[in-house]
Amino acid sequence: MIVGFLLFDGLEELDLVGPWEVWSMAAESRSEVRCVAISEDGKGVRCAKGLRVLADHGFSDAPDLDVLVVPGGRGTRREVDNPALLAWIEGAARSCAWVTSVCTGSLLLTAAGPARGKRVTTHWGATDLLRGRGEAGEVLEDTRYVVDGNVVTAAGVSAGIDMALWLVGQIWEPALARQVQRSIEYDPAPPYGD
Amino acid sequence: MIVGFLLFDGLEELDLVGPWEVWSMAAESRSEVRCVAISEDGKGVRCAKGLRVLADHGFSDAPDLDVLVVPGGRGTRREVDNPALLAWIEGAARSCAWVTSVCTGSLLLTAAGPARGKRVTTHWGATDLLRGRGEAGEVLEDTRYVVDGNVVTAAGVSAGIDMALWLVGQIWEPALARQVQRSIEYDPAPPYGD
Repeated sequence: MIVGFLLFDGLEELDLVGPWEVWSMAAESRSEVRCVAISEDGKGVRCAKGLRVLADHGFSDAPDLDVLVVPGGRGTRREVDNPALLAWIEGAARSCAWVTSVCTGSLLLTAAGPARGKRVTTHWGATDLLRGRGEAGEVLEDTRYVVDGNVVTAAGVSAGIDMALWLVGQIWEPALARQVQRSIEYDPAPPYGD
Repeated sequence: MIVGFLLFDGLEELDLVGPWEVWSMAAESRSEVRCVAISEDGKGVRCAKGLRVLADHGFSDAPDLDVLVVPGGRGTRREVDNPALLAWIEGAARSCAWVTSVCTGSLLLTAAGPARGKRVTTHWGATDLLRGRGEAGEVLEDTRYVVDGNVVTAAGVSAGIDMALWLVGQIWEPALARQVQRSIEYDPAPPYGD
C-alpha cells in the first residue's frame, strides 16, 4: 500500500508532514504501508517557509499509488495553472482508493479533476478563491475535513493530521488511529471519542 | 532573530516541522525572524520516517542562534553518544535566549548540558530512559511542555507545536500566537484560552 505525497515548490511544510507523520506511524504497525514523496522532475523542492525536502520519485517513475496526498501552500496558486501537474494528479488518482488534499491542495484536486463537482473544504482564508473558480460542487467551512466518495479534503494545515487519522481508522480500525494519535501525542483534543 | 533547527538522521519529522511551521508563520508578521536548518556536516538527513530534508548550514558555518530547537526521534539514541553534536549544542545554546527540544530531543539537551539538572519532559515512551540517564533534575509526565529558566522541553511530537506557540506568545504577545494558531488551524484545542 503506497501513500504518495505530491511535492512542489511553495507547499506548506506542515500540510505535508502532518499526514506524513500519521501515515508513517501507522506503517510501524502495518508494514504494508510505504510513504513516498513525488515531485514533477524528481528533484527536491523548497517549501513555502523555506524548508527543502527531497523527492523519492518524479512523475515519470512514480509507482501506482493507493492513497494520494496533495498539500497546499502558496505554491498551489502557480501549480493550478501547470497542466503537467494537473494531468499527473488526474492519472495518479485513478489507482487510488483515497484521494486527499490538505489546505489549498483542494485547489489542485478540483482543477485536476478528482474533486471537481464534489463537496470539499480548504483553508478558511481560501474559501472565496476556491468558490470563485467554480470547480467545486460546494465549499464547506468550519469543518476539519470533508468526505465525498473517495475524495477527502482537509481544512488548513493542522487539519491534515485529523484527516489522516480518520483515514487510518477507516482503512484499518479506529484503535489503530488512536494508537497513532497517542504515539504522536496529538492530544490537544483527540479526533476520536471512545 | 535566528531560530536554528538541529538536523540529524532519524529525527522525527513532525518534531521538526511542527515548530518550524509555527516559527516561520510568526515570521510572516515579524520579519526579523529567520528559520535555519543545521546538520553536523551541512548535508541533508533522512528522518525517522523516511523523509529527506536538506540543511542550510553545517556546524562549522552555522550563524549564532537566538533560539535552538532540538527535535527527537529514534536518531537521538545514536546522537546522545556523538561528542561533536553534543558539543555543538552546548556551544550553540550560549547565544540563545531560548533553548528548546521536542520529544526525545530532551535526551540530547540534558546530555549536552543546557538541560542538565533541570526539570524537563519528553515523549511518554521515553521517560524511563531519560530518568535512567540521571542527567535531568526531574522528568515530568502528563504535561505538554516544561519551562525551566530559558530551557523549554516539549513532550512527544505534536507537543512541539504547543511549545512553539507558547514561546511566540512569550517573545511577542499572545495575540500573535493566537494569530499563528488560527493560520495553521491548530484548532483541535487551542493552546491558549482568551
